[in-house]
Amino acid sequence: MPELRRDPLTGRWVVIATERARRPQDFVRQSRARAESGDCPFCEGHEAQTPAEVMAYRPADLPANGPGWQVRVVPNLYPAFEPATGALDLRRDGLYLAEQALGAHEVLIASPQHVEEVAKLPLSQFELLVRAYIDRYRAHAANPLIQYIQLIMNYGREAGASRDHPHSQLFAVPLVPSLIDLELARSREHFASRGECLLCGILRQQLAEGERVVLENERFAVFAPFASRWPFELWLVPRRHEARFERLDDEGQELLARALKETLGKVFAGLNDPPFNYWLHTAPTQQPVDEYYHWHLELAPKLAIAAGFELGTDVMINTALPEEAAGFLRTTPGPA
Amino acid sequence: MPELRRDPLTGRWVVIATERARRPQDFVRQSRARAESGDCPFCEGHEAQTPAEVMAYRPADLPANGPGWQVRVVPNLYPAFEPATGALDLRRDGLYLAEQALGAHEVLIASPQHVEEVAKLPLSQFELLVRAYIDRYRAHAANPLIQYIQLIMNYGREAGASRDHPHSQLFAVPLVPSLIDLELARSREHFASRGECLLCGILRQQLAEGERVVLENERFAVFAPFASRWPFELWLVPRRHEARFERLDDEGQELLARALKETLGKVFAGLNDPPFNYWLHTAPTQQPVDEYYHWHLELAPKLAIAAGFELGTDVMINTALPEEAAGFLRTTPGPA
Repeated sequence: MPELRRDPLTGRWVVIATERARRPQDFVRQSRARAESGDCPFCEGHEAQTPAEVMAYRPADLPANGPGWQVRVVPNLYPAFEPATGALDLRRDGLYLAEQALGAHEVLIASPQHVEEVAKLPLSQFELLVRAYIDRYRAHAANPLIQYIQLIMNYGREAGASRDHPHSQLFAVPLVPSLIDLELARSREHFASRGECLLCGILRQQLAEGERVVLENERFAVFAPFASRWPFELWLVPRRHEARFERLDDEGQELLARALKETLGKVFAGLNDPPFNYWLHTAPTQQPVDEYYHWHLELAPKLAIAAGFELGTDVMINTALPEEAAGFLRTTPGPA
Repeated sequence: MPELRRDPLTGRWVVIATERARRPQDFVRQSRARAESGDCPFCEGHEAQTPAEVMAYRPADLPANGPGWQVRVVPNLYPAFEPATGALDLRRDGLYLAEQALGAHEVLIASPQHVEEVAKLPLSQFELLVRAYIDRYRAHAANPLIQYIQLIMNYGREAGASRDHPHSQLFAVPLVPSLIDLELARSREHFASRGECLLCGILRQQLAEGERVVLENERFAVFAPFASRWPFELWLVPRRHEARFERLDDEGQELLARALKETLGKVFAGLNDPPFNYWLHTAPTQQPVDEYYHWHLELAPKLAIAAGFELGTDVMINTALPEEAAGFLRTTPGPA
């Protein structure tokens, strides 16, 4: 069972997840990266190679864990968070605090075909992926143990993807991550002093200035944040004030899928298919923050390394001007 | 001039440093990493290839910017922080806050010879490197504009080193980084409630339990933190309560050099010469935190990637058990 541990000095939590049974010797640096086996467990027809699915979109007359699906969700083989088997077990040991890493860790397989370039998936697959995000989010949000649900995509080995077949991951976790706490605290403070949602204000300033905006549709805007931490960092933000991703209506889901595909297409075409990560920031499942929090999706191509200065200060050094990065992507067409 | 920008949502600062004149096109992923030119500007005899030195240890009868030195300090060619040319210029623009990234950014060349494996440098070079850290720290701490001084080492391309010749870097910055603020706040709180320095308490618990301790000498202990964020993360901590690195006495400097060389030797030998970063955490130059803050050095081999979950939550997933990692390194001898 993975364990959550809190560092007494910084208060930051970490998951110790050794279920892959990696011994210290396994970390000894190899001279060559191991290639992925040709036999991809995420491909249609290989359903028996994954844990049994928790959900899939396929015609009703076809059996589970067989072919015919469009998006398929399975538990992660090496979960960082595991389903609760009993009550939460908080462990105090002198200055240390730890608890079992209870929750869930799922893989959302974004396509039955082994299309390695996720930006090239058809819009219909993005629509189904967004629908799967919301279905799985809602399923876990009902669990009173869960405090926060994180949806992410890792794309490319250098961005931490262990498989080339396009997929996302869901983490349902028993705490509110410190980074979300930070955004909540600042959003709450801004709302108290100005009577407005902070991200609504940021969005208004972004759209008025325009120079960091990459694209817009009726429901979403994509821009480079003013203080981008990474080269070509982008935020995908709903134009209406919405605190909770999982309440997105059908039109919103469709327009999110469009904005996402268009954004990934520009990143793919403009930056030559770079590795990237994106992640959701949304309201914690059990906190009444709806007045002042505003959900959004953050994306960062993997074009830089957090080195000693960044790791030691949490102040990033970004070598790309956000205004130039946004201008470059704004004028980059997506892949043909 | 690089710029410091504060993100309104998280409050985190970032340095926008585009002095390398990288255009958006320069970030387009290349199919092959460019190799370093054979002509290393950090090697003895190549002094003319760097900016003029700010300090060097060489016999008094030899001229500056020529050979004969043991450790040499030069301004970074592409500084993230630049010397002040006027008053601090704070820029407010709607919800955004920015200021010039004033300060200093220096390279400490750790050896006149091109010894790529830093762990193999003789102890005498580590002693001189520690002395250079302290000399340069003290020089910048006298500047009233400077709030914090960060000393780091990036080793290996994957850890962000742009040169293979062993070197460290110093960043003198006009703010207290958020991560230091976090440690200060928790240390202050612990001191207020328990009347003890938090890291003194952590050190006592580490030494009593022993299972995460890698090595000790008369003045320093090296251990894996309980909530290690990275596989084989190590902290190098003075056994006496000391808030300020720059006040380290001669014996302390010598024993720090020993502990550092021994630690790097174990990491080198046990993990097959992995890339790594280390960074200093010490008291801000202008804050009276001496009662409760305790300086230390943090080291992380680059064996894992911060992917979507980690970037989106600031909660790391660590696949190595700190107790096993420490046990492995404790029993690993250094290089012959």
